[in-house]
Amino acid sequence: MVLSKANILALVLGYPLFTVFWTVVFWTRIAGRYQPTWESLDTRPLPDWYDNAKVGLLIHWGLFSVPSFGSERFWQEWKGGNHKFVHFMMKNYPPNFTYQDFASQFKAEFFDPKEWTEVFEASGARYIILTSKHQEGYGMWPSPYSWNWNCKDVGPNKDLVGELASAVKSYTPQIRFGVYYSLPEWFNPLYELDRKNHSKSNTYVSTKVLPELYSIVRRYQPEIIVSEDDEREPDSYWNSTLFLSWLFNESPVRRTVVVNDRWGSGTFCRHGSYFTCYSAGTLPPHKFERRISLDRHSLGYRREARLGDYLSIYELIASIAETVSCGGNILINIGPSPDGRIPPIMEERLRQVGAWLDVNGEAIYASIPWTHQNDTITRGIWYTKDKDLDRTYAIVLNWPEDCLLFLGAVEPSKETKIFLLGYETPDAKFIRLKFEARLTGITIAFPDMSEVRSKWAWVLVMSGIGPALLL
Amino acid sequence: MVLSKANILALVLGYPLFTVFWTVVFWTRIAGRYQPTWESLDTRPLPDWYDNAKVGLLIHWGLFSVPSFGSERFWQEWKGGNHKFVHFMMKNYPPNFTYQDFASQFKAEFFDPKEWTEVFEASGARYIILTSKHQEGYGMWPSPYSWNWNCKDVGPNKDLVGELASAVKSYTPQIRFGVYYSLPEWFNPLYELDRKNHSKSNTYVSTKVLPELYSIVRRYQPEIIVSEDDEREPDSYWNSTLFLSWLFNESPVRRTVVVNDRWGSGTFCRHGSYFTCYSAGTLPPHKFERRISLDRHSLGYRREARLGDYLSIYELIASIAETVSCGGNILINIGPSPDGRIPPIMEERLRQVGAWLDVNGEAIYASIPWTHQNDTITRGIWYTKDKDLDRTYAIVLNWPEDCLLFLGAVEPSKETKIFLLGYETPDAKFIRLKFEARLTGITIAFPDMSEVRSKWAWVLVMSGIGPALLL
Amino acid sequence: MVLSKANILALVLGYPLFTVFWTVVFWTRIAGRYQPTWESLDTRPLPDWYDNAKVGLLIHWGLFSVPSFGSERFWQEWKGGNHKFVHFMMKNYPPNFTYQDFASQFKAEFFDPKEWTEVFEASGARYIILTSKHQEGYGMWPSPYSWNWNCKDVGPNKDLVGELASAVKSYTPQIRFGVYYSLPEWFNPLYELDRKNHSKSNTYVSTKVLPELYSIVRRYQPEIIVSEDDEREPDSYWNSTLFLSWLFNESPVRRTVVVNDRWGSGTFCRHGSYFTCYSAGTLPPHKFERRISLDRHSLGYRREARLGDYLSIYELIASIAETVSCGGNILINIGPSPDGRIPPIMEERLRQVGAWLDVNGEAIYASIPWTHQNDTITRGIWYTKDKDLDRTYAIVLNWPEDCLLFLGAVEPSKETKIFLLGYETPDAKFIRLKFEARLTGITIAFPDMSEVRSKWAWVLVMSGIGPALLL
Amino acid sequence: MVLSKANILALVLGYPLFTVFWTVVFWTRIAGRYQPTWESLDTRPLPDWYDNAKVGLLIHWGLFSVPSFGSERFWQEWKGGNHKFVHFMMKNYPPNFTYQDFASQFKAEFFDPKEWTEVFEASGARYIILTSKHQEGYGMWPSPYSWNWNCKDVGPNKDLVGELASAVKSYTPQIRFGVYYSLPEWFNPLYELDRKNHSKSNTYVSTKVLPELYSIVRRYQPEIIVSEDDEREPDSYWNSTLFLSWLFNESPVRRTVVVNDRWGSGTFCRHGSYFTCYSAGTLPPHKFERRISLDRHSLGYRREARLGDYLSIYELIASIAETVSCGGNILINIGPSPDGRIPPIMEERLRQVGAWLDVNGEAIYASIPWTHQNDTITRGIWYTKDKDLDRTYAIVLNWPEDCLLFLGAVEPSKETKIFLLGYETPDAKFIRLKFEARLTGITIAFPDMSEVRSKWAWVLVMSGIGPALLL
Repeated sequence: MVLSKANILALVLGYPLFTVFWTVVFWTRIAGRYQPTWESLDTRPLPDWYDNAKVGLLIHWGLFSVPSFGSERFWQEWKGGNHKFVHFMMKNYPPNFTYQDFASQFKAEFFDPKEWTEVFEASGARYIILTSKHQEGYGMWPSPYSWNWNCKDVGPNKDLVGELASAVKSYTPQIRFGVYYSLPEWFNPLYELDRKNHSKSNTYVSTKVLPELYSIVRRYQPEIIVSEDDEREPDSYWNSTLFLSWLFNESPVRRTVVVNDRWGSGTFCRHGSYFTCYSAGTLPPHKFERRISLDRHSLGYRREARLGDYLSIYELIASIAETVSCGGNILINIGPSPDGRIPPIMEERLRQVGAWLDVNGEAIYASIPWTHQNDTITRGIWYTKDKDLDRTYAIVLNWPEDCLLFLGAVEPSKETKIFLLGYETPDAKFIRLKFEARLTGITIAFPDMSEVRSKWAWVLVMSGIGPALLL
Repeated sequence: MVLSKANILALVLGYPLFTVFWTVVFWTRIAGRYQPTWESLDTRPLPDWYDNAKVGLLIHWGLFSVPSFGSERFWQEWKGGNHKFVHFMMKNYPPNFTYQDFASQFKAEFFDPKEWTEVFEASGARYIILTSKHQEGYGMWPSPYSWNWNCKDVGPNKDLVGELASAVKSYTPQIRFGVYYSLPEWFNPLYELDRKNHSKSNTYVSTKVLPELYSIVRRYQPEIIVSEDDEREPDSYWNSTLFLSWLFNESPVRRTVVVNDRWGSGTFCRHGSYFTCYSAGTLPPHKFERRISLDRHSLGYRREARLGDYLSIYELIASIAETVSCGGNILINIGPSPDGRIPPIMEERLRQVGAWLDVNGEAIYASIPWTHQNDTITRGIWYTKDKDLDRTYAIVLNWPEDCLLFLGAVEPSKETKIFLLGYETPDAKFIRLKFEARLTGITIAFPDMSEVRSKWAWVLVMSGIGPALLL
Repeated sequence: MVLSKANILALVLGYPLFTVFWTVVFWTRIAGRYQPTWESLDTRPLPDWYDNAKVGLLIHWGLFSVPSFGSERFWQEWKGGNHKFVHFMMKNYPPNFTYQDFASQFKAEFFDPKEWTEVFEASGARYIILTSKHQEGYGMWPSPYSWNWNCKDVGPNKDLVGELASAVKSYTPQIRFGVYYSLPEWFNPLYELDRKNHSKSNTYVSTKVLPELYSIVRRYQPEIIVSEDDEREPDSYWNSTLFLSWLFNESPVRRTVVVNDRWGSGTFCRHGSYFTCYSAGTLPPHKFERRISLDRHSLGYRREARLGDYLSIYELIASIAETVSCGGNILINIGPSPDGRIPPIMEERLRQVGAWLDVNGEAIYASIPWTHQNDTITRGIWYTKDKDLDRTYAIVLNWPEDCLLFLGAVEPSKETKIFLLGYETPDAKFIRLKFEARLTGITIAFPDMSEVRSKWAWVLVMSGIGPALLL
Repeated sequence: MVLSKANILALVLGYPLFTVFWTVVFWTRIAGRYQPTWESLDTRPLPDWYDNAKVGLLIHWGLFSVPSFGSERFWQEWKGGNHKFVHFMMKNYPPNFTYQDFASQFKAEFFDPKEWTEVFEASGARYIILTSKHQEGYGMWPSPYSWNWNCKDVGPNKDLVGELASAVKSYTPQIRFGVYYSLPEWFNPLYELDRKNHSKSNTYVSTKVLPELYSIVRRYQPEIIVSEDDEREPDSYWNSTLFLSWLFNESPVRRTVVVNDRWGSGTFCRHGSYFTCYSAGTLPPHKFERRISLDRHSLGYRREARLGDYLSIYELIASIAETVSCGGNILINIGPSPDGRIPPIMEERLRQVGAWLDVNGEAIYASIPWTHQNDTITRGIWYTKDKDLDRTYAIVLNWPEDCLLFLGAVEPSKETKIFLLGYETPDAKFIRLKFEARLTGITIAFPDMSEVRSKWAWVLVMSGIGPALLL
């Protein structure tokens, strides 16, 4: 009626790029690589860097960090009548206080993105992902499509995505920067309107979601885009394939960007650079990523969390080992505080992970799965393999009793050499461990624990071995 | 690109009315009265009620009521570097406090719309207009197109437009309810984007302004719509004629609604039910409305205002008299406080106006201009006339010296009778005043002032008179 | 036990004056005028200025101005379970919000004491009194005996008593400055302790009340001290006579200070420079002061007050007339807002009083009662008299019907002359009114009302008259 | 002057105990044990429990926890012009914001004293001490002598000392409860007044400090009182000996209470149940306590603290070992957050200490110093001894290279048996270690590290050994 097609495009793309757009469209039609269909998009190979990275961080930061209570789903829980949240509000706020009123209390006054990058680096992570917009809808950057509901307009008065993206690019260029962006917003009235119309309209998508997605990519050039959907609307409602074809063909990150598999109902575990489904301990056919949160009960910061709510470093390393052995990436979630700090307990866990990777990263980064993922006999053993060299790694989660470890899945040969990462002397960089072949499998003698640099878990490097035949 | 035409319409109209829309469009095409052109729209006659009403109230209420300092243009003044506002912020708020942060402090905790209607009624006003959205953009109703930047989502947690509209309709059905709605928003990034594109796009209009206008009309059925523009964009940018043709043809208020003349550059003083231009003391060819504010320096509430900043009742009545004599309506502006109160000094002025109208309203309501607007000789005399009866009114702003008033513009006849409104005794409802014809004009003897009910200004009712010939 | 007598004195007096004290005590013992007994204190004559002043202002400002709801007794009402206040708190504040938490919201950001003095001056008041400490206990000056519970330490961060005292002394030196100081504090735990001890201890008095009283007098030199008691403890508990003997003998204001009659149970209407008891329309034997509040329902500012809650100027003048006719002073109470403003409606009333006094003050200031206080026959007539000249004043609250006023209490003589204040012409300053003697009383012809400057009430000046004999 | 001696006593003691007091005084005079002199007080033996306890926790919680920035000395640093603090305030607060304004933001909404006691218990601490009043003067209990400057009146609206004292007594009765109480208050105007008088007055002490000390002891019965002084005023100003004689003779905790050595200038390291002076690694003649803070840079919680600012568990155990070897107690300081949480990083350190003590506490609790404190040859070895049994303990901070530890200070005998705490098997609770006597000293063979339960440091239990002769 009143919107010309040009207007819509201007809305979606922003004007400066408007003319560029048609050129691009033209060029694409002729020379283009990816069509806006899953058949076409699914043919795009996964950029190498992502598979090699193995360890990433996810940062849940937003308005939910202001109450920092219960869960990052605070708003939904409260409005959904969850007693715990209702009670919290009744006890601490005036009756007509709204969730949105929290925004002016979000200050980020101690946010020091350079300091964050030091922690990222120390953690050994190879990519980090910030929630640019959670289901609450609050923009963590000055989105023109979310006026007065973003961190520049209300609260911190800063561009949080922008400051973090810059810091990562300046101080830790080896770490990739990505954004999480939720397609649905729990309480956005335009989304509700579309839903009431059974997705026959997609006002919400065309005036909010797509303009924001295009804009955020052009503005911050994220190399990972983690989408979120609530599995109600199909990807056609979200116009996902259109966006992705632009992302893969034209966007400034078209060569390196990776995306997850949450682009509308039916896409989960089926379409995307990597999938977010997996089953424990098995080798899936498609690259996947597994998410764990330092706080087991919440992705966002919870002030009331106790020590026991945080994963121990043992649990963390076990998850990393299991995931990487199966070919997946591990995404470790942290939740900064509303004033912009990474809580020290989270910093500690990240540094512990980094300290462990510092000794044992060889078994993780750029590794590929081995024939076996975990050992057939001994629990707590996870295998990986070097892409190129004759090196198989066994990640040993528990120090073996009497210092003797039996591996049921390994068949030694005459060429076999076995080392322990972090077991070295000033004189000898690599000290070979003694071992003994068994009928099936192998027994390896560990050194005195006090002579090994690694803590919490240990990695054997084995060459000249093969998988044991299963009897 | 991604917005189908149906989507746009759904956005603009809301889905439930979508089918209705096409029917309506069809019907309009065939039978329709007003085309979306000024030629057509200008042919619509002004609904009677408005010309008869003469006195209206404008209520400036919004986020600017939270700082309630300086002016309702607080945001613009501050951001524009006006020292007074900059200093106020520096002195009273932390450095990174944003205007939007005021929203959570807007509480309206004492807002009692019923109580407001009592004051409206006592004021003698026949219509009231609330700022549904000021240039700041904050919605005073739960606009789905302004999520989290409206009074339901942040701050009061109430539908302020809705509560007031209901109260007016319930308690004072004789008073018409209207809304002020500013087309531009000073800092809306979508509007800025359109402007950067030299209005080649109108994203802002199609996703925000029009949907809100349609929605507010359907939701609250205002009988006056006071638009605001900044005279930059033409009405074609705003799609004003389209909206107005819908308003006049299809909307629930199509029979009675009136609109002002701020629908894009070029419309001021040219198009609209009534104009807002006038020149003091002259009779313009088109119905007009004149706006005065109780606080001379601000439309919004200012906490720092002193008594002398408020118009006196003498000034108010003088403005009413002058305006109505020239055929205009007077719109008296008040500014409630952020907690939802009409400040007592404003209530007093309104009740004083009402008390005066209670005695003298006959000369105001439903009056028409006389041959002369003001007297040719004596200052402070304003004339009006009854539409039907042989009654000419002279509004006398100053009690005549020695109780003798000379009117240079009036020619008496043998039939002449003169009364003073509010001058009556228990026995005689109407007491004729003595007068004497002069060469030109007439001298009228006033009674003792203490016998007259009216205060501040007085109204003579004259029959059987004509205009004096100017010598 | 641990407090030597010297310590106590130091506490009470502050050290710098400590040596002075003993000198003074010595001198007093020898030469002293007033002993710390009522017999002695009651012999002190009332300083002239106070009786002449007739009109004063009382300013209720304190923490209660922050909620500015219901009454200045907010705290007590709330804690006492008054539903209205309990409901207000439940609706607008979190459950564990305390009254004391209001303190940090008290900002006085618009407080401009110079501006206040302009209003004081315009009101015609001759003295003003500020609540230096209300029953809530919060100090409106930086009292060292009320650390962190005063306006310098929490909230405004200013010395409010000091700033106002200075402004009054600088800009309106003709206006006397006084302080209200409540002896009891509703919730002071030391006071509660004393009460639990049945006043056998007076810790509260010796560590808080007396040190503050001495200190405030020395610091701000108030010429009126309005004390408050709750009529529970006797004056001996409060050590009132001791303080007053110091005040009358030694303090910097010993020559001019006046005090009221609330110095412990049994003092009300019995001891003090003036009393605060009176019975309507009768002439009491002792100087008295009558308090009226612009807001009939509260001494402190109430945001929810409506116009009808404020006294009209007619009511105000009637009170002044009645009170002064009976020899009393009138104390008009106003309640500034928490940001430090005199609300315009209050400013208006004060200016109206001042405008009336400007014409008619001759009948008020420095007047003395006449033989009759009000007229024997006509209602709404109050008499006063000049101290020295042969002038009797009749304050006429209602303009007489047909401009003829009958005074039953006045007996004219051959010398009788009668004028009306504010009835004058450029040629004649005083225009004699016509009158006619009646059997008893006199009938006076008023001029046309429009020729008189005074509004709301009128004052006749009569010389050569006497009281009519009552038949 | 106005304070009778009885009043003073009432003030200090509270009335209910007033009569009791005189009885008590009488009794004391006759039969009393301790006179209010250091000669007498110093004769009181140290209650056993304290020397046996060895490990305590200090909890710095107060208003400084609200900004939780920089240091618990925030107020003093800011007002003293420390740039860091001045800048913080300028950046985050309005210009006239006072420190006291923080009080209403102190909420303690997550304070769960029972949960705290679980952490205390897990830490192995035998006593805990809460700041009942820091130098800022804010009372952490509803002190009647600090009205409106305590946690019941402003902010949390709870009795924090009381809730914690109750919880400790209910849930962990084996842990002693104590309070920290600062005699001076940086900005108390009464204290400043006394100082201006060169302590010739002690108003501050007699109306604030002593009443509070008596009251807090009677109310919460703390078994440790940690006083604080700024070494300006002598103990005579503070009346310390008087208070202590009451504490040791009459108070409800007279049998078990211990106090530190900060009771006025001249008392540090000279008077008190225990001293707070010590020199690293030497055995002082008097019982002492050493304080360490988990956050090296602050006793109060700092939001900006990073992981590296916290002591590692290695540093913590080293401090414990060194301190206890020298006969001292270790007091570990933590700083809860303003919402009432023990930050997880602190909880972790406390639980790590507790885990270590769980295995190795035998060497710590109730131990006494041995002949040597640390080893003469090998670094990182600290000795303690059992009070009764023939057991000498060597705390080994670093696992010995090649699992062979040389102790230069130990002389073995034929009876010598050596065990390692936490080195046991399901079969054998105690496994003897092999050792070899040297010319001087002894070499001990450690088992494989993986077989030992203890982490971070290890404890040897040796019987039948003596000190080596120093050559």
